Amino acid sequence: MDAIQNYIDQNKDRFLEELLELLRIPSVSAQPAHNGDMIAAAEWLKKNLTIAGVDKVEIHQTPGHPIVYAEKMIDESLPTILVYGHYDVQPAEPLELWESPPFEPVIKKTEIHPDGAIFARGSCDDKGQVFMHLKAFEAMNLNDQLPCNVKFMIEGEEEVGSDHLGTFCKENKEMLACDVILISDTSVIANDIPSITTGLRGLSYVEVEVTGPNKDLHSGVYGGGVANPVNVLCEMIASLQDEDHRITVEGFYDNVIDLSEAERKAVNAAPFDIEEYKKGLKVNDVQGETGYSTIERTSTRPTLDVNGIWGGYIGEGAKTVLPSKAFAKISMRLVPNQEPDEITEKFIKHFTKIAPAGVTVKVEPHHGGFPVVTPIDTPEYLAAHKAMKDAYGKDPIPVRGGGSIPIVALFEKVLGVKSVLMGFGLDSDDIHSPNEHYGLFNFYKGIETIPKYFINYAELKSK
Amino acid sequence: MDAIQNYIDQNKDRFLEELLELLRIPSVSAQPAHNGDMIAAAEWLKKNLTIAGVDKVEIHQTPGHPIVYAEKMIDESLPTILVYGHYDVQPAEPLELWESPPFEPVIKKTEIHPDGAIFARGSCDDKGQVFMHLKAFEAMNLNDQLPCNVKFMIEGEEEVGSDHLGTFCKENKEMLACDVILISDTSVIANDIPSITTGLRGLSYVEVEVTGPNKDLHSGVYGGGVANPVNVLCEMIASLQDEDHRITVEGFYDNVIDLSEAERKAVNAAPFDIEEYKKGLKVNDVQGETGYSTIERTSTRPTLDVNGIWGGYIGEGAKTVLPSKAFAKISMRLVPNQEPDEITEKFIKHFTKIAPAGVTVKVEPHHGGFPVVTPIDTPEYLAAHKAMKDAYGKDPIPVRGGGSIPIVALFEKVLGVKSVLMGFGLDSDDIHSPNEHYGLFNFYKGIETIPKYFINYAELKSK
Repeated sequence: MDAIQNYIDQNKDRFLEELLELLRIPSVSAQPAHNGDMIAAAEWLKKNLTIAGVDKVEIHQTPGHPIVYAEKMIDESLPTILVYGHYDVQPAEPLELWESPPFEPVIKKTEIHPDGAIFARGSCDDKGQVFMHLKAFEAMNLNDQLPCNVKFMIEGEEEVGSDHLGTFCKENKEMLACDVILISDTSVIANDIPSITTGLRGLSYVEVEVTGPNKDLHSGVYGGGVANPVNVLCEMIASLQDEDHRITVEGFYDNVIDLSEAERKAVNAAPFDIEEYKKGLKVNDVQGETGYSTIERTSTRPTLDVNGIWGGYIGEGAKTVLPSKAFAKISMRLVPNQEPDEITEKFIKHFTKIAPAGVTVKVEPHHGGFPVVTPIDTPEYLAAHKAMKDAYGKDPIPVRGGGSIPIVALFEKVLGVKSVLMGFGLDSDDIHSPNEHYGLFNFYKGIETIPKYFINYAELKSK
Repeated sequence: MDAIQNYIDQNKDRFLEELLELLRIPSVSAQPAHNGDMIAAAEWLKKNLTIAGVDKVEIHQTPGHPIVYAEKMIDESLPTILVYGHYDVQPAEPLELWESPPFEPVIKKTEIHPDGAIFARGSCDDKGQVFMHLKAFEAMNLNDQLPCNVKFMIEGEEEVGSDHLGTFCKENKEMLACDVILISDTSVIANDIPSITTGLRGLSYVEVEVTGPNKDLHSGVYGGGVANPVNVLCEMIASLQDEDHRITVEGFYDNVIDLSEAERKAVNAAPFDIEEYKKGLKVNDVQGETGYSTIERTSTRPTLDVNGIWGGYIGEGAKTVLPSKAFAKISMRLVPNQEPDEITEKFIKHFTKIAPAGVTVKVEPHHGGFPVVTPIDTPEYLAAHKAMKDAYGKDPIPVRGGGSIPIVALFEKVLGVKSVLMGFGLDSDDIHSPNEHYGLFNFYKGIETIPKYFINYAELKSK
């Protein structure tokens, strides 16, 4: 173990330099203009994995963005850990809100990150976190201390629904065979409060289009006489939640499993300061489903959020137009046991039903994902608990995460393997927002913790 | 009169060529990028008015866009007609919906315009219509048949609220002294059903901004826990109208004068085919305030329409963001005796009041205008009735218009003069929409009718 730690200490600066290289590649999976950058990022990972000493590394083409697969098989009799991560990032827009260009990483100190943080799109989600695994592997491998077999599966479509990873898994079951899937794409409560994510919400994402008259009209000549699609869209969206902020889509809660009192207690036991929370977001008050705490609302309850809306004249000045169309992107976070396809179906049915006669409605499903909950009494989880306790000097707290990694449920279904979500980011790292950043403390802490996981897991499995 | 008609017939083609020249100048008053074009359009009018034979023509600078003033005073003892119009146009966006470029006029035949129509932004609203007056004046003047004095006041800010015309009128009362103001910026019911506009709706236009968290957030990590400004904006907009499509802004209807049964009868007497109306707009049904006909809803009742809305991620693909801000442009059409400033005040008060604790709200007033109703028993109106009856061979129908020409009320207040709204467009001419057009029939019919108005008016006044 010392050899590994020494190696990490001696190569700290190089590790960081390498990550900054990767962050400079604008691999935005949602925007076709960046398709070339996606390939560049995959090639970069292939090169870096080779240096780290894998036996085999391949770039697998898909109808979408490529998947990077690599492995180091040292002994069939030893357990195999499959590391999953993604090299694609969220769009950086709105660009004007970035203090430094999203793909020109800079290191800056912040209140929460006194040692400095890397500001760049993807620094935390997920390039910075998946890259920790490459360096942890390198440290173990080049010091001949790799305790088990390793496989890497790094995709380029996580931010757009992992559309092709499912097929890839189905078609490569043998190649991907493993005992556990290790993922670092989540966060800890705080740098002095380690935690492990034991649940994730699912996702249903749709885009809606409301059409009124067949063309933009003069709001004076026609105003008051025909349905205005923007007004109508607003009414329809408003009607999707009641005054208790419960979602009104018919049958939406049918399969939601309510937490037991004990589970609710555990969830609310996690340290949380509502005043700090409000201060951090500069809001006068929180808002959410009646009868639940903020932690519950953001991790154990389903939601409906408009992620984007547009219609009519949005340029400078005033235009008195009655628009022909209005659009919105709407996503719903799901909890066990809601099924994304079923929820999308129900949404489409409901949304079409509530449309008034004066408009027509189109709903296009984008992507979805299943919610997951992971057990905490397995060697897979206990290895993470032990590793974090060792690295942080404290017992990590099991917490439910509010985000979605749709692929986790799929791994369980297709590969029959549980995932462990050992992430090192902070909720305040602004992933998906302008000025995304990742603490240097978190980056190096992750690289130190991962080998401990490998060693613990090999031990626990050998028992 | 024959000499005038002959002159018009002989110069038809040149008149059209000149109008096309004017339409090629993209004088969009709302967009600062076109400030140079605004000046070019004013200069072009000055040149053309000079050719038509005015004694005096000046371009008056304002803090906004310039006002073109011209006059031909032939005899102090004769009545004076002031022609008002505007050379500015609405923004052309959305450009992708234009079949030909908005500022490259083309002539095309349509079902309603078998003789052809001029397709270009401003062809009908208002360059095409104000230009008819220049040519009608030229025809009378160069044939020494001008029956009274003429003044022209052509502004460049009608589409953005005529912010500086009020001051201009106050400061130039003497120069603008006249007996009637003649305006062609409205429409007839159909080319075989002449009509004269006897009322206009007023306008209150505001832009709203709703702010939730201080930055865009990950909708998974925060979704369900904080107010989403887009969802909130939708709820707030939806709450501005009740199920009867009545506006809920406190005190909104306080000063609305309800029409008498007789007036309602007259309004509804105008020829109107609801099926044709729906077919023309490709909508399955109309929608509006309970208890009123479509004609009433679009001309005699106040409205609230969202003219534009935007917020969050509106790019390609899916982004799971919980936006920091959402925006909307909202306009209200007003009827006698609603006062724009008072309504704007009430809106700001109401909109701020209904904002939930989780967001902050900003409302910025854009511009407003008073509603007007003109009497139909005055020589000013009767001259128009006679002119149209003569030109169309039918009695024109007095109708209330749904649009707003805010300045009409101001003329009455400041100059103490009534306006006559003798317009020649059609509601189907797509003003403010892509593919705005103006019929050649309407253009020439206007040039023929205007001299008749001058002659009738001079006669009626001399009695």
